[in-house]
Amino acid sequence: MNYPMKAFSIFLLAVAAGVFVPSAAVASLTAPSEVEQWDLIELTLEGPSEGNPFLEVRISATFSDGFQSKVVDGFYDGDGVYRIRFMPDRTGTWTYVTHSNRSRLTNRQGRFTVTPAGEGNHGPVGVYQTFHFAYADGTPYFPVGTTAYNWLHRNDRLRTETIDTLAQSPFNKVRMLLYPEDEKGRPLPPEFPFEGTDPRAREWDFERFNPAFFRRIEEGILALRDLGIEADVILFHKYGEDWGFESMDVETDDRYLKYVVARLAAFRNVWWSVANEWDFVRTKTMADWDRYFEILRDKDPYGRLRSIHNGFRMYDHNKDWVTHVSIQNGAAVEESGRAQMYRDVYEKPVVYDEVKYEGDLVQRWGNLSAEEMVHRFWAGTVAGTYVGHGECYQHPTREIWLTTGGVLRGESPSRIAFLRDILESVPGRVNPIDKWQDPTAGGVHGEHYLVYFGREAPAEWPFRLFRRGVAEGQEYAVEIIDTWNMTITPVEGTFVVTREDGYHFVDREGRSVELPGKPYHALRIRRVGGDSVFAAEELPLL
Amino acid sequence: MNYPMKAFSIFLLAVAAGVFVPSAAVASLTAPSEVEQWDLIELTLEGPSEGNPFLEVRISATFSDGFQSKVVDGFYDGDGVYRIRFMPDRTGTWTYVTHSNRSRLTNRQGRFTVTPAGEGNHGPVGVYQTFHFAYADGTPYFPVGTTAYNWLHRNDRLRTETIDTLAQSPFNKVRMLLYPEDEKGRPLPPEFPFEGTDPRAREWDFERFNPAFFRRIEEGILALRDLGIEADVILFHKYGEDWGFESMDVETDDRYLKYVVARLAAFRNVWWSVANEWDFVRTKTMADWDRYFEILRDKDPYGRLRSIHNGFRMYDHNKDWVTHVSIQNGAAVEESGRAQMYRDVYEKPVVYDEVKYEGDLVQRWGNLSAEEMVHRFWAGTVAGTYVGHGECYQHPTREIWLTTGGVLRGESPSRIAFLRDILESVPGRVNPIDKWQDPTAGGVHGEHYLVYFGREAPAEWPFRLFRRGVAEGQEYAVEIIDTWNMTITPVEGTFVVTREDGYHFVDREGRSVELPGKPYHALRIRRVGGDSVFAAEELPLL
Repeated sequence: MNYPMKAFSIFLLAVAAGVFVPSAAVASLTAPSEVEQWDLIELTLEGPSEGNPFLEVRISATFSDGFQSKVVDGFYDGDGVYRIRFMPDRTGTWTYVTHSNRSRLTNRQGRFTVTPAGEGNHGPVGVYQTFHFAYADGTPYFPVGTTAYNWLHRNDRLRTETIDTLAQSPFNKVRMLLYPEDEKGRPLPPEFPFEGTDPRAREWDFERFNPAFFRRIEEGILALRDLGIEADVILFHKYGEDWGFESMDVETDDRYLKYVVARLAAFRNVWWSVANEWDFVRTKTMADWDRYFEILRDKDPYGRLRSIHNGFRMYDHNKDWVTHVSIQNGAAVEESGRAQMYRDVYEKPVVYDEVKYEGDLVQRWGNLSAEEMVHRFWAGTVAGTYVGHGECYQHPTREIWLTTGGVLRGESPSRIAFLRDILESVPGRVNPIDKWQDPTAGGVHGEHYLVYFGREAPAEWPFRLFRRGVAEGQEYAVEIIDTWNMTITPVEGTFVVTREDGYHFVDREGRSVELPGKPYHALRIRRVGGDSVFAAEELPLL
Repeated sequence: MNYPMKAFSIFLLAVAAGVFVPSAAVASLTAPSEVEQWDLIELTLEGPSEGNPFLEVRISATFSDGFQSKVVDGFYDGDGVYRIRFMPDRTGTWTYVTHSNRSRLTNRQGRFTVTPAGEGNHGPVGVYQTFHFAYADGTPYFPVGTTAYNWLHRNDRLRTETIDTLAQSPFNKVRMLLYPEDEKGRPLPPEFPFEGTDPRAREWDFERFNPAFFRRIEEGILALRDLGIEADVILFHKYGEDWGFESMDVETDDRYLKYVVARLAAFRNVWWSVANEWDFVRTKTMADWDRYFEILRDKDPYGRLRSIHNGFRMYDHNKDWVTHVSIQNGAAVEESGRAQMYRDVYEKPVVYDEVKYEGDLVQRWGNLSAEEMVHRFWAGTVAGTYVGHGECYQHPTREIWLTTGGVLRGESPSRIAFLRDILESVPGRVNPIDKWQDPTAGGVHGEHYLVYFGREAPAEWPFRLFRRGVAEGQEYAVEIIDTWNMTITPVEGTFVVTREDGYHFVDREGRSVELPGKPYHALRIRRVGGDSVFAAEELPLL
């Protein structure tokens, strides 16, 4: 295996930052005595290297803090080294005991202390209030994702550039391929997931993983973690068809998934995306996709977020192993009324990971204007869903963000950053205010509203709030948001509400909000006076 | 039981027409010797009337034509009479044998001949080509439904009026409640499903059905059948809360369903709607709804269409016992891009049974203009879905079509009839032509298109067809449809197509279609020259 030392650079950076200490020196068993909550602790064991340890040696450990215990698979990392990784989710004293079918590796015991999470460590992201997300410590998480499918599989210059770009970007989630895409005519990936001599010949030894490949993946995931970015890891796709990773047999598929889980699940910023464009992978059946989900559910002791991304056909996201809905749809977030429909269908967070991309390709999936990309973010946002970014401008270097990462050239990211700030100012989460009547409004009933006019260019907006959470005499302040030019202009005075009819409250003096008559404008409306009203209603109002 | 003779009028009409001959004279076993395919044959048996036959006597029969056999439950019809109804789906000789826990009723055998279906008998409706419907004999069925919830439970004058109205209407499906709605302040229903003395006192004997109630239901279903109208029978709802039918215990619920299936399943125009606004019925759990579906699936030997209608919350229509999607949504068919979204989610026929109603109520669910009602029909149609009508104009008689039936007063039905004619002219079924790019177009690729502009009022339409099914040199004729004024105006000449780019074909001479610049217009585009092209594509084109 050709393993270039420089590939460790990001990794070493992470090590220097003290976040992850691999035990390079292999002793009989080494493990840190202390780790912080939601961080990763690694047991390193010296074991047999003869035969094929990937197939022949089983290793796992039970971790317990006295209240709960979790069984975690370990993995063979080559050169006689075995590792077991674990993410403790509670502080206190934990103990462990190993299990193996090799006596050198089994029944090894130890203990360690879990200290409170340090600054910037909010734990893993999970589903919150049905349609949304939060970190384990309660901090809100609003996914603002982008896609750079193959960035993990490019050289160190590009990887560093990608990380630098992300650090300056609004994005807090990246979709990326676990096994590489074949970028025809571009350099080969430095490593592949299986041992083999000639990638073009598809001469893989599917019974032997290539640990160096996975170390590069882990470096990338760690680098993202340190930027507060979630790693949405895509496990299957068809973009490397020449290499055959989408056509492995059932046993290899399952072994691959279990190996990936053993290596990656303990990283708290990992999300599992079972596939990209699952329906375009013609070498799998629905039973395969379901089984992959089951393996993830059964093997991942932390229940990391699980989704699957479609091409043209929808997976049944009502299946209980799907934690959130990841959707490609070229039209659904053109307007908010469409965008919110999947929420009701699945009653899970809806993330539009692919809504066409900003770019200048001849293919229409890759030629949105920046304005249209930003428009789709806003339309999805007021619908109580989350939209993902992608960019594919043609460039002499042939480095396209969507595929290779590198640099962002588009005009949407700065506007998306502006939107993210606004989203983070919401006290709670954005949900549709009155879904069957007025798709333009999202927010928190009686507290905080975002009204987005999209491509419409109204000259005024009659001040009118749906009744839920609203009560006579409440007072609201309004700001006009230019989503493209990124300005927020307060409207003079406040609006004091009175009941209009069975559905709405309006301003007491019948005032409207004057608008500039241009597209891509929004309102932010905040209650600044009057009491809060419990906003739950026995029956929704049709 | 007060059983008014006049309630038989519609029934007797049906009998006179020779379609259904009940055995009034109870002998030991009577049965016709001949029946036509998909018609109903009824075995009538004399049996015990002591004790509580509804609870204590089981009766069923196995019907076989030598190739297949079906076990069908019978039911107690009061006065010592037991009936077993069966719908044969193949011609030829059938035999039967009865089963019972009473010796007088068991092991009775016989045979009958099934003759070919007569004129107007196309068999039951089933799902066809994933998103659509057809009669069993292959005749297309395009649901054009309306709702008259309580019409079965009104007096004979009103029932006759309703049937007369339906006979003149475009509607070929009616949604209706099996147990009655409580129309506060209006006359009580003449019959109730259970024995009892005072409806207001909820003094039902839930262990004894009222056969007279069910006979009235059957009269109504037969009257619809003879008009070619499907009876979409709603099994549970909350509109009779004072009577308690939505709050029965589990055993009574299940016995009620089984009794209903035994009585009604053999009528070929019956569809099962498990509930209306299921989520507004607060006395059931999801496990109840699922179990009702399971009972229908297991007990109905014909697999009649099964759905459930929602209030605000979606049932999971991906569950395999759901045959088609019945939806209430006040916004989804405002535009085609929304309307088609549920198709992809469920991969079943999507019927928007409630999209708000034409009317003048203060409630917004009942105050659509006729124009808006018609608009929603068209928007749903080009999206490859089916839309339902309802009407609730206030009137001095307090007879509102939606509830009582009677007469239609709105302006949409004539336009819906016009649309139905156009729909029936399609060679095949309407599906979205290019769902992520152009929601305005539905039809059959390369054959027949309907393009609907909705509230837009374009002055021209550049002739452009999505590439699927289209080939160089094909020739198309265009008509302009005014959906409100019900005119069809041919455009002079034809359009010969040539490839524009990777996605579209356009007219060779770059011609556009001139339009009147008014809303609610559509185009019908038909291929009149050039060869047909197989329209399936390996991969959908994003």
